[in-house]
Amino acid sequence: MSKSQKAEIDAILRQPRPQPRNVEEMRAGYATAQTRMPVPDGIRTSETALGDRRALIVEPIGPAHPGTILYFHGGAWSLGSPETALALTAALVTRTGMRALSVDYRLAPEHPYPAAIDDGTNAYQALLESGADPAGIALAGDSAGGSLAVTTTLRARESGLAAPAAVVAFSGSFDLTLSGDSMDAKAGIDPIFTREMLGPIGGMYRAGHDARDPLLSPAVSADLTGFPALLLQAGTNEVLLDDSVRLATRAIAAGVDAVLDITSDVPHVFQSFAGILDEADQALDRAALFLAQRLR
Amino acid sequence: MSKSQKAEIDAILRQPRPQPRNVEEMRAGYATAQTRMPVPDGIRTSETALGDRRALIVEPIGPAHPGTILYFHGGAWSLGSPETALALTAALVTRTGMRALSVDYRLAPEHPYPAAIDDGTNAYQALLESGADPAGIALAGDSAGGSLAVTTTLRARESGLAAPAAVVAFSGSFDLTLSGDSMDAKAGIDPIFTREMLGPIGGMYRAGHDARDPLLSPAVSADLTGFPALLLQAGTNEVLLDDSVRLATRAIAAGVDAVLDITSDVPHVFQSFAGILDEADQALDRAALFLAQRLR
Repeated sequence: MSKSQKAEIDAILRQPRPQPRNVEEMRAGYATAQTRMPVPDGIRTSETALGDRRALIVEPIGPAHPGTILYFHGGAWSLGSPETALALTAALVTRTGMRALSVDYRLAPEHPYPAAIDDGTNAYQALLESGADPAGIALAGDSAGGSLAVTTTLRARESGLAAPAAVVAFSGSFDLTLSGDSMDAKAGIDPIFTREMLGPIGGMYRAGHDARDPLLSPAVSADLTGFPALLLQAGTNEVLLDDSVRLATRAIAAGVDAVLDITSDVPHVFQSFAGILDEADQALDRAALFLAQRLR
Repeated sequence: MSKSQKAEIDAILRQPRPQPRNVEEMRAGYATAQTRMPVPDGIRTSETALGDRRALIVEPIGPAHPGTILYFHGGAWSLGSPETALALTAALVTRTGMRALSVDYRLAPEHPYPAAIDDGTNAYQALLESGADPAGIALAGDSAGGSLAVTTTLRARESGLAAPAAVVAFSGSFDLTLSGDSMDAKAGIDPIFTREMLGPIGGMYRAGHDARDPLLSPAVSADLTGFPALLLQAGTNEVLLDDSVRLATRAIAAGVDAVLDITSDVPHVFQSFAGILDEADQALDRAALFLAQRLR
């Protein structure tokens, strides 16, 4: 039973905190909060370049299994780095035994849409050009990074690149029109986000682009025919819940292999609480099995 | 890659076969086809009674893990027995290490709705009265048996019984109104069923009861609030695909832990092809992990 674990995490997330005055203060606060998450043992990190961007290599200390996870950190397209997602990336690496390459993509508002997707696509192309077999690559990410895993895959297809074998998104944001039922149904239940917060966040990223663009709102308008195997995880205490529900049902209607994996009474990117929330570890174990089955 | 495996299975399922003249011939044909599926090694079977009905115990030859799977065989509510589902039940038992009890519930048309659900509920109650902890019980089934796993859980709640820990359905039939989009969208793609076949099959079971009843069409009308953790697997080559999609989204909207797990280009109850179709083994492995995580 993790009812008490869930209540404790909800209370932590609802604690009042100082209001950041600008994006730099937001970035600092996000980095402080995220790097508090314990990083599992058994991994080592190093740096490389993928396309024009830095990438953090996260790999098992011992021999690695074949397969590469191209990871996109969360942070509302405007915060975060491979380091702020290290605990979560490492949790996938330790469970799968595969290496991850976490992309330091450009952030809004300095670099709005489509800069992050361009960086993701260039990183994926560089990985292919380094000799990696697309059948052994998954794109994965949390929150805005889950969005980038999906939209980079769509953009890669437009660019004529071979599709990766799988895409995994934790609490992905797939609808900048904010039209999901959960946007209102989960108001107050979501301890982190409200519609009122998400409007400006998405606005900073799309910078005047039409929110209905498939690369901004794939749950609303993307053609997912031929999309790789897709795993979408989310919690029921999220205004973004229906982003995952609608992207999954849209993928299924297009004939895609898709797993929609919803955990009750947990918040946005609850997988970050691995080690202190049983449901987080269990969800990561399911994600690792999915990746092991899909990647060669 | 299992593209050739998928094509072979599709061709087998489309082979013309003699038209049965009555339900007895249908039962014989179904039993012959189903018992051709290879039963994995490492299990033993014996018989017991649960409520008023016979149940087949399927358990590991070695020491079993805690947990009980109460299994409901498929067969359109009118065909089949615990023996016709033995390969599939055993596949779950070998993967989880748990015992299964497979209920020989009464069949339509001799015993229409709600006889099978009555038998399922009595079997579940007998299991609880034998001292089994509901936190260690899952209800599972394929096709009509998947429906019975869900509707028995709903009926058990109405009867004031403690809920089981999990429910697993493979290609469940959850809508006797046949209102899912896939009913037409997958016509011809589904190598087994058509809307024209499913109407009479459902009619034989419901025997004049309103198809919109939540115990006949839970995807349409059931109140799933407080329902146990739910895993629904189906293939995209099924007219019944949207039964699982809609039951899952309905469960998620009610706040339930739910996994909707869809495999592309495979038919109704593709898990039966474990050992000859990679996707079948992989889906069963995911189901086993789900059960191991949920059952104590």
